[in-house]
Amino acid sequence: MSLKSFLIGSPIETIKEKHERLSKTMGLAVFSSDPLSSVAYGTEEILFALVLGGAAFLNYLLPIAVAIVILVAIVATSYYQTIHAYSSGGGAYIVAKDNLGDYPGLVAGAALLIDYVLTVTVSVSAGIAAITSAFPAIRDHTVALCLFAILFISLMNLRGVRESGKAFSLPVYVFIGGLLLLIGASFANSFSHPSVAYAALREPASAIFPIFIILKAFASGCATLTGIEAVSNGVKAFKAPEAKNAGITLIWMAVTLAILTIGIAYYAHYYAILPNENETVLSQLTRTIFSKGPIYYGIQFATALILILAANTSYADFPRLSSIMANDRYLPRQLSNRGDKLVFSNGILILGFLSALLLVLFRGDTHSLIPLYAVGVFTAFTLSQIGMVRHWVREKGKGWLKSAFINGLGGLVTGVVLVIIAVEKFAQGAWMVLVAIPVLVYLAKEVQRHYQSVADQLSLDKCVVEAVDYQHHSVLIPISGMQQAVVGAIKYGKAISDDVTAIYVYIDPVETRKMKEKWDSLCMGVKLQILHSPYRSVTEPLMDYIESIREDYPDGVITVVLPEFVPSKWWHHLLHNQTALFIKGILLFKKGVVSTSVPFHLRK
Amino acid sequence: MSLKSFLIGSPIETIKEKHERLSKTMGLAVFSSDPLSSVAYGTEEILFALVLGGAAFLNYLLPIAVAIVILVAIVATSYYQTIHAYSSGGGAYIVAKDNLGDYPGLVAGAALLIDYVLTVTVSVSAGIAAITSAFPAIRDHTVALCLFAILFISLMNLRGVRESGKAFSLPVYVFIGGLLLLIGASFANSFSHPSVAYAALREPASAIFPIFIILKAFASGCATLTGIEAVSNGVKAFKAPEAKNAGITLIWMAVTLAILTIGIAYYAHYYAILPNENETVLSQLTRTIFSKGPIYYGIQFATALILILAANTSYADFPRLSSIMANDRYLPRQLSNRGDKLVFSNGILILGFLSALLLVLFRGDTHSLIPLYAVGVFTAFTLSQIGMVRHWVREKGKGWLKSAFINGLGGLVTGVVLVIIAVEKFAQGAWMVLVAIPVLVYLAKEVQRHYQSVADQLSLDKCVVEAVDYQHHSVLIPISGMQQAVVGAIKYGKAISDDVTAIYVYIDPVETRKMKEKWDSLCMGVKLQILHSPYRSVTEPLMDYIESIREDYPDGVITVVLPEFVPSKWWHHLLHNQTALFIKGILLFKKGVVSTSVPFHLRK
Repeated sequence: MSLKSFLIGSPIETIKEKHERLSKTMGLAVFSSDPLSSVAYGTEEILFALVLGGAAFLNYLLPIAVAIVILVAIVATSYYQTIHAYSSGGGAYIVAKDNLGDYPGLVAGAALLIDYVLTVTVSVSAGIAAITSAFPAIRDHTVALCLFAILFISLMNLRGVRESGKAFSLPVYVFIGGLLLLIGASFANSFSHPSVAYAALREPASAIFPIFIILKAFASGCATLTGIEAVSNGVKAFKAPEAKNAGITLIWMAVTLAILTIGIAYYAHYYAILPNENETVLSQLTRTIFSKGPIYYGIQFATALILILAANTSYADFPRLSSIMANDRYLPRQLSNRGDKLVFSNGILILGFLSALLLVLFRGDTHSLIPLYAVGVFTAFTLSQIGMVRHWVREKGKGWLKSAFINGLGGLVTGVVLVIIAVEKFAQGAWMVLVAIPVLVYLAKEVQRHYQSVADQLSLDKCVVEAVDYQHHSVLIPISGMQQAVVGAIKYGKAISDDVTAIYVYIDPVETRKMKEKWDSLCMGVKLQILHSPYRSVTEPLMDYIESIREDYPDGVITVVLPEFVPSKWWHHLLHNQTALFIKGILLFKKGVVSTSVPFHLRK
Repeated sequence: MSLKSFLIGSPIETIKEKHERLSKTMGLAVFSSDPLSSVAYGTEEILFALVLGGAAFLNYLLPIAVAIVILVAIVATSYYQTIHAYSSGGGAYIVAKDNLGDYPGLVAGAALLIDYVLTVTVSVSAGIAAITSAFPAIRDHTVALCLFAILFISLMNLRGVRESGKAFSLPVYVFIGGLLLLIGASFANSFSHPSVAYAALREPASAIFPIFIILKAFASGCATLTGIEAVSNGVKAFKAPEAKNAGITLIWMAVTLAILTIGIAYYAHYYAILPNENETVLSQLTRTIFSKGPIYYGIQFATALILILAANTSYADFPRLSSIMANDRYLPRQLSNRGDKLVFSNGILILGFLSALLLVLFRGDTHSLIPLYAVGVFTAFTLSQIGMVRHWVREKGKGWLKSAFINGLGGLVTGVVLVIIAVEKFAQGAWMVLVAIPVLVYLAKEVQRHYQSVADQLSLDKCVVEAVDYQHHSVLIPISGMQQAVVGAIKYGKAISDDVTAIYVYIDPVETRKMKEKWDSLCMGVKLQILHSPYRSVTEPLMDYIESIREDYPDGVITVVLPEFVPSKWWHHLLHNQTALFIKGILLFKKGVVSTSVPFHLRK
């Protein structure tokens, strides 16, 4: 208990829940760390995929970056509409469930939960890669650094440190400013340094099916779009008029994302940056322009920081979505419990555990995690857009046809991209997500079925004929010898019933004789029943005896009173047979038997 | 439960415990697998230690082997006396405790327990090394093979497969026969092949302190003596006259051990076998004489088998010694419980776990485990011999002076060897054992102190003034809503007391209002108490309420009746808040509060 309060701090009262409203500039900072941070690895992923086809393919970087920016525009326009239709926050799970039904909703929900875990893993590993690019000496400790970052973010969230616009705005704007500075300086620098633009590498493209290489690179680059839906989930967090402010923020964000993506890709191409396992593309470009001076280190730190903030957004999204799904009975209800700090602690713990596990499995390598990433994102995009089309068609409000068309186009494009990603990235890891989503959907349905079945069985609406005769109440007290705890239990037994029997299990003849002599000398005023146990088990003869009483009085109540001595230190438990605990465990599954613990507290 | 019965088989009745008596030839097989098997690695360890000083040191192999055989003779003579004095089985723990007191007994006991673990680890890793020497292809799987062997031996012992003279005698005699054949064939072969006897390596010894190299090699070779005390622990297992038969068996065993040790060392020297990480010395020698034919494979398998049997002897010794120490209250009493198969299952499980752990930590490398091994053996030897001296001096029977002199000499020699081993092997791992022994002794004393304190506190001899007023019995029933399980709990509460209160913790205002309406409509006939909980905790308001009742009736009994619904499948528990379990856990530490579970069983 004291360790918990040291780590987490003291609890917060329910009524103290506060609702901070965000301005547009603050909103941009809070919601854009996730989408903008993907600029840090987007270009690099495209280059890694292209270089597999041969150096000549590197020249496709710019067209692919342009295609991705067009995709950003389409998706952002679609979400702009979602914001105005679902002003209370329209996550893909809710939109798909409301408009398309339970299963599409669950698919979107499962895809999102997986993605939130991956956002943490990818962002943390990319953030640590920004640091290790600047300080190669600590590169060997990548996994440890990543785990430390996850532990830190998890603890902060368990402590209830909430998204605070002020704290968030600084690194986000430093990052945006730093990258704009980088693009500007690259532009200025380009006058004195002619482009080397992979020119030395200009050779005929050698792959047999060049289109597959290009599609694979496009699929890799789609990781840039992750998090773009964040604003539409959080419309309620904006100052009034909420929908309008959120919409404008979304446009700002999409424009910034487009500028940074094109800018980085253009100058990576201009200066012929090659992808490399030991240093990120962004770090190489920054080093080329500014060399290893204060501006370089500033941009690396800002990159690491915005990526850590991006991971942090999942710590708001994952517990919130899992609590919504738990309230719909699709996930264990423990996920809807608020902890001491008013946060959904169980969701935070599960997210921290899963992302740490993934990090260890993939050894903190951003590059090998990316193929898993985009599948979930685009599944959610597609379902959400199709759900919106259904929404417009159903509502038939003003301009519904135009709205349905825009979302329909968005759904179509993201659907096609989803197929490209699933096919191109299948063997590299996308299959895991494609397997995990249906498994999660199946489990969610099973969980819901179970809760429904429990509710039906516990309901008082149906009258259950369970005739219990509370007049006939047999109390059994298993004892292992005569001592203080046993005396207390027998006195308690006599207080709750007139039919009390002490039970002693005969294992060793000498012990049994001693026990009987002691019993006779003490005159406890209740029967002593000695049960034989050829196999030395204590529980089996007791259960048989309970059965025999049950035969005599089928409707009677049987209470097993267990004398328990409680050690003063928890580790003393290791030195004692846990027979009472074991008997209680078995009795729980024995129908119509009540078990009672009468504790006797040791003082030392 | 069904997994357990599949792995372990059905239980054995207490009365079916059988006592098989052993003839001398069977006794030799049962008790000598441990000491004789050490021939498989003894010579190798001496060579490994010598080669560190330079190749010239290899020529010290023979003199060291002779010194070890002399040591065998002295120790065997000492134990011959112990057998006649302690015919009920005189393990070092009992001899030292009886004659020297608690602390020397505990030191001997701790040393033996450590050694039994090491016997398993060393024997299994050496046994697997015999196999991998013959089949180098599986060498990479050493650790997995070792763990599999430990798992197999543990399961066999949990199933109650006892030391059976017949099953044991074959591999032991095949091993003895095989090695005698090897020595004989080496002798025959030596006529046609002149000795190469490390001759090519003859160069001046280069070490600055040659004596340290030689002592280190001697200390390594002392691992040969492990297990030599086995006969004296098991005197009772022999046919009458027990002591005489056991004594003769001990002499046979010592003579066999001496012949094999000298024979192997002599021909390892004659054929200039060099120690090597990939093939054992014994395998090299056998291969040299017989090349890789059926005799070679036969000897390798017999070696592996006798080593596995040697490990198996620890599975009898460790649980037996730990149950004796647990009966003396030095170890947790769970270690003295007999399992379904009449064996001390907990001891077997702990031995299996610890030896597997050591195996993994040392990667199944016999050579790096040996330095830990001999310290414990010689500690037990020395204490046992000194104990015997005290025994003779105290008894002053016929010829006591001669007996005391023999054991005194044994104690002195083993004591000196112990110091040599502790010093020479300190840095390579002996320090771990030298640290572990005092730690274990301290813990054992603490455990005994705790049991004594519990026995004093529970004793009925002292009258405890604990005035409990069983007339005033308050029953509290924490409820989370109105359902079947709650109705059952309330009916039960009314059956055991007239003062029943249902407790509902107010967290959500809407839920609370609904609950109250339902309660009012159902007329349960007991009070409903609603407790506020600003921090959303269920337990804290309940505990505060219990305190307030305690203030009103300081001597009254308080029973907390917990309605619990029991899922039909165990994994359903994961889907429900474990509030009842949590409350029961906290109540256990609350003085004077009885907790009662009223189960309601779900059918699906």
